[in-house]
Amino acid sequence: MAQERTSTRRRGRRGQGAAKVMSAGLAGPAYHTVRNTLTSPEVFSEDAVEDIHATALRVLEELGVRVLNAEARDILVAAGCVLRDDMMVHFPRDLVSDRVAQAPREMVWHGGDGYRVEFDMRSLHFMAGGGCPNITDIDRGRRPGTLADFVDLTRLQAHFDTLPALSPSIEPQDVAVNERHLQTTRIQLETAGKVPWIFARGSGQVEDCFEMIRIARGLDEAAFKERIWTYTIINTNSPRQIDVPMAQGIMDFARAGQVSIITPFCLSGAMAPITEAGSLTLSHAEALAGITLAQVTNPGAPVMYGAFSSNVDMRSGAPVFGTPEHIRTNFGAGQLARHIGIPWRSATGTAANAPDFQSATETQLGLWGAVLGGANLIVHAAGWLEGGLTLSYEKFIMDLEACRTITAAMQPVEATPEAISFETIAEVAPGGHFFATEQTMARYADQFYTPLISDWRNFGQWQEAGAVETVDRAQAHWRAILDGFVADGLPEDRREALLDFVERRCAEGGAHPVD
Amino acid sequence: MAQERTSTRRRGRRGQGAAKVMSAGLAGPAYHTVRNTLTSPEVFSEDAVEDIHATALRVLEELGVRVLNAEARDILVAAGCVLRDDMMVHFPRDLVSDRVAQAPREMVWHGGDGYRVEFDMRSLHFMAGGGCPNITDIDRGRRPGTLADFVDLTRLQAHFDTLPALSPSIEPQDVAVNERHLQTTRIQLETAGKVPWIFARGSGQVEDCFEMIRIARGLDEAAFKERIWTYTIINTNSPRQIDVPMAQGIMDFARAGQVSIITPFCLSGAMAPITEAGSLTLSHAEALAGITLAQVTNPGAPVMYGAFSSNVDMRSGAPVFGTPEHIRTNFGAGQLARHIGIPWRSATGTAANAPDFQSATETQLGLWGAVLGGANLIVHAAGWLEGGLTLSYEKFIMDLEACRTITAAMQPVEATPEAISFETIAEVAPGGHFFATEQTMARYADQFYTPLISDWRNFGQWQEAGAVETVDRAQAHWRAILDGFVADGLPEDRREALLDFVERRCAEGGAHPVD
Repeated sequence: MAQERTSTRRRGRRGQGAAKVMSAGLAGPAYHTVRNTLTSPEVFSEDAVEDIHATALRVLEELGVRVLNAEARDILVAAGCVLRDDMMVHFPRDLVSDRVAQAPREMVWHGGDGYRVEFDMRSLHFMAGGGCPNITDIDRGRRPGTLADFVDLTRLQAHFDTLPALSPSIEPQDVAVNERHLQTTRIQLETAGKVPWIFARGSGQVEDCFEMIRIARGLDEAAFKERIWTYTIINTNSPRQIDVPMAQGIMDFARAGQVSIITPFCLSGAMAPITEAGSLTLSHAEALAGITLAQVTNPGAPVMYGAFSSNVDMRSGAPVFGTPEHIRTNFGAGQLARHIGIPWRSATGTAANAPDFQSATETQLGLWGAVLGGANLIVHAAGWLEGGLTLSYEKFIMDLEACRTITAAMQPVEATPEAISFETIAEVAPGGHFFATEQTMARYADQFYTPLISDWRNFGQWQEAGAVETVDRAQAHWRAILDGFVADGLPEDRREALLDFVERRCAEGGAHPVD
Repeated sequence: MAQERTSTRRRGRRGQGAAKVMSAGLAGPAYHTVRNTLTSPEVFSEDAVEDIHATALRVLEELGVRVLNAEARDILVAAGCVLRDDMMVHFPRDLVSDRVAQAPREMVWHGGDGYRVEFDMRSLHFMAGGGCPNITDIDRGRRPGTLADFVDLTRLQAHFDTLPALSPSIEPQDVAVNERHLQTTRIQLETAGKVPWIFARGSGQVEDCFEMIRIARGLDEAAFKERIWTYTIINTNSPRQIDVPMAQGIMDFARAGQVSIITPFCLSGAMAPITEAGSLTLSHAEALAGITLAQVTNPGAPVMYGAFSSNVDMRSGAPVFGTPEHIRTNFGAGQLARHIGIPWRSATGTAANAPDFQSATETQLGLWGAVLGGANLIVHAAGWLEGGLTLSYEKFIMDLEACRTITAAMQPVEATPEAISFETIAEVAPGGHFFATEQTMARYADQFYTPLISDWRNFGQWQEAGAVETVDRAQAHWRAILDGFVADGLPEDRREALLDFVERRCAEGGAHPVD
C-alpha cells in the first residue's frame, strides 16, 4: 500500500527533514481493521423501531416513489411493483421485505495488491470529505477545485491508514465533464491501492470506470464481478423521488456486483418532516426502495444502508450538522440499520465557513453521534466545510487527529495482573514518580498514542517556537506528506494500458453525464 | 436565579441590542436537570473490575498511604487502621469496604432561593474550568488572574443554566492569600444562587467560608449541616499521599455535612503506572482512602468519587488530555465508580496553548470520554487551556456550545404516530419540501436547538459580514453577557452582613492557607 511504502522510505530518510511526518505515521493500531466496541443508544423502543419500519413500508406501498428512469420502472413492475400516474412506483410491502432480506449482511471491499476492507455491523471506517465543488487552504484561499488539487487530496488520502477507501474529495472543474470521470479514476488508480469511488452519472461513465479498474487490477469481467472493487454513493431526491442517473447507477452497480451506498439526504424541516422520527421514516422508505431496486436487478448485490439525516437552520433553510438533532437522528438511524441488518453509512459535517473552533466542534459532535450510533462507514469525516461546499486541506489533517484518536480509543484495555500493577505501585514511594519503573521503561515508547499535529509543549516553549496555531501546523503537515509522497507503483504495463484507455476514450469524446 | 431573572429582563429589552444574547439564552431543556441516557462501555470484564478493586484494597492494606495530617492519622487509627513508619497508614480491607458502603448513593446540592441540583449515578452535570493561575482573552492576552476577572467569570457562569455549580475559575493573584478566600466567596454569593465552591486550604479559611454561606443563605449551624450548600475538590498527592490541608478538608467538610470530591490526579506514566489499569488501580486506592477518612470522620458524609486520570506526553512528562488513553481511562473509571456506587466526578481538558482547533478537538474527545463513561459531574468542561494553567474567556463560551449540544442530545426522541409523520409525508409531493406542512408550521419555532455562537450562514453572507471566526463571535458573546448582567440580588441585609463579615475578618488578618 502507498502509505506503508512511503512510511518505509521515510524511515530510511530520517534526519533529512522528513521526521515530522514519520513520527505521525502508522504507529498504533491498523486503523482500518478496528471494530466499534461501543454500545449504541436505543432512543427508540423496539416497538417504535417496528412502527417506523412499518410506516416506511406503508409509504412505499400507499404513497409510492417517483422513479424517473424508465428501465428501473420496468424491472420494478416486472418484480411486482405497481405503476400509477405515469412514474409513481408503489412497492408491495412483502416484496420490499423479501428483497431487502437478500442483501448481504457483510462484505469485503478489495483494492490492489491484496488490500482488503471488511464491512459488517461492527466495522468502523472513516472516509474523507467528498463531493465538494471548492477547495481551500490557508495560503491560497477558497477557489474552485482543480485536477491538481484532486491529485493532492488523493495522495493525502493514500497516506493515511485511517482511510481505507478514497472519497470523491473535490470536483476538478478544470476538466470537462465528459472526461472528468476518466481523469479522476486514473488518478485514484495510479495513486493508491485503496478502494476507488465512481460517480453514477450514467452508464457510459460507469462502464468506462469499471473497465479502468479491471485494467489496473488485472481482472477480466468475470473476476471483476466476483468481488467488490469499487463503490458509488446514490442520493435519492428526497422526498420520494429517484432520478435517472441514480436509478441507473443502482442497476449498473448491482449488475456488476459493486457497492451502491444508498443514501437519502433527508434534512428535517426541509426535504423531510421536522421530527427526527418523521425524517427517519422518509429516509428509511427511500433507502428500502433503492435497496429493493438493487436486489430486483441482481439478488444478493452488495449495498449499504445510507442515512445522512440532519436538520436545517429554520431561519435560512441551510443544512446544519453536529446539532442535537443530528446526533439523535444518528442514534435512530443506527437502530433502523440494525433492524434490517445491512451495514450502515452515516456522515459528520459542519456548516462552518472556516477551519476554526466551530468547525472542529460541529465535526466532532456529528462524528460522535455517528460513532455512537454504530455507523460502519462515516463519510465526510475529514476536511469538510460549509456543509460540503468546500474542502479544506488543513481541516483534513486536523479532523484525522480525532478519527485516529477515536479509533485508538476502541483498542482493548489490558487488565492482566501486570497491567493492574500491584508490584509497580509497590516500587514507588509515596509522592514519588513512575518514570523509572521497570514497567514504564518497558512500555514508554509504544504505550501511548502519537499525535499527528497536536502540540503538547508548555506555553513558554510554544511561544518561543513562534506560537504556531493548529491550522498552521496542519499546513506544514500536509505539505510534508505531499513532498515525500511515493505512489503505490501500479505495474508499468497496467499504468500504460490505463493511460492508453484514457487517451482513446478522450479522443472518442469521453462520456457525458446523464441528467 | 440569576440567569432566569437576567433572561426575563433581557426579554423586556429586545431591540436595545441585547437580542443576540437573548436568542442564545435558555431555550431548550433545563440543562442542569438532564440525565445521561447513554450506555457506558465496559472496557473491563466484571472479573477485571473485581481484580482492580481487590488490588486497590491490597495497596491500602499492604502498602498504605502516607497521611501527613496528624489528626487524620489519629482518627483513622482509632477506627482500626494501622500506623507504621511514622506516617504510613495501612487500611484493613474490611474497614474500607464497610466505610465506603456508608457514603450516600445520591444527594442534592442546594443554592439560594430553592435552587437544587440532584446528583446520582445517572446525573450529568458540567462545570467550568477551574483552578487556573492565568487568564486570557483575545484582546488582552495571557496574564495572571485578577479579582476583576474572577468577578467576570463568576458572572459568566451564573448566566448559563448548563453550569449548576460555580467553579474556582482563576486564582485572583492581586488579592493576598489570607484574604482571597473571603473575597472569592463573597463574589460567588453576591453573584449567583448557584452552589459555590470552597478551597480546602486549612480550617481557618474553610470555617470563614462556611460562615459566609450561612449568612448568605440565612442558615444557622444546624440547618447548614442538614443539607449540602457547598463543595470542595480534594486532590491527593499521588502516589499514595494525602497532605495536611487536603486531609483537613476531608474532615472539615465531612463534619459539616458538605461535599468532598475526592480526586486523585493520576497521570499514567508519571504519578501513576503507565497502563490504564495500573493508573486506575492507584487512583481507586487513593479515592477509597479519602472516602474512608470522610466516613470515619462522619458516617454518611456526602462525597464524590473523583478520577482525573489521563496520561503524560512521554517526551516531556506534561499532562495531556483528549487522548485515547484519557478516553479509555474514563471508561474504566466509570466502571469502578458504579462498582462502589458513588456519584463520580471526571474532567475533560486540553494541553493546547491557544483556543484553536486542537483545543476544541481535545476538549471534545475528553468530554465524550467522560460523558460516555457515565461521569455525573464533568469538571473543566469550559474554558480550560494549557492543562489548566490558563482559562480563556472565548473558549469558555465556545466549549459551552458543545456541553449544551450534548445535553440537548440526551432529550428523548418522540416516536408517536404524529412524530413518525405518515400524514405529513403524504402531504408533500415527490421532490417537494416540508417547509409549509402543518407539522412544520406547528413546530418550527422550538423544534431545534438554538446555538450560542455557531454561524450557519453561507460563505457569501458570512464573508460579507466580515468573515468573523468563532473566537471573535465568542468574544462578542461574553462581552454582551457581562454588559447586560444582573446579579441574583442577595437580600440587602444579607449582602451587608456578608460585607461586614469580610471587613471584620480582613481587619483581623484573614486566614492564611495551611501547607
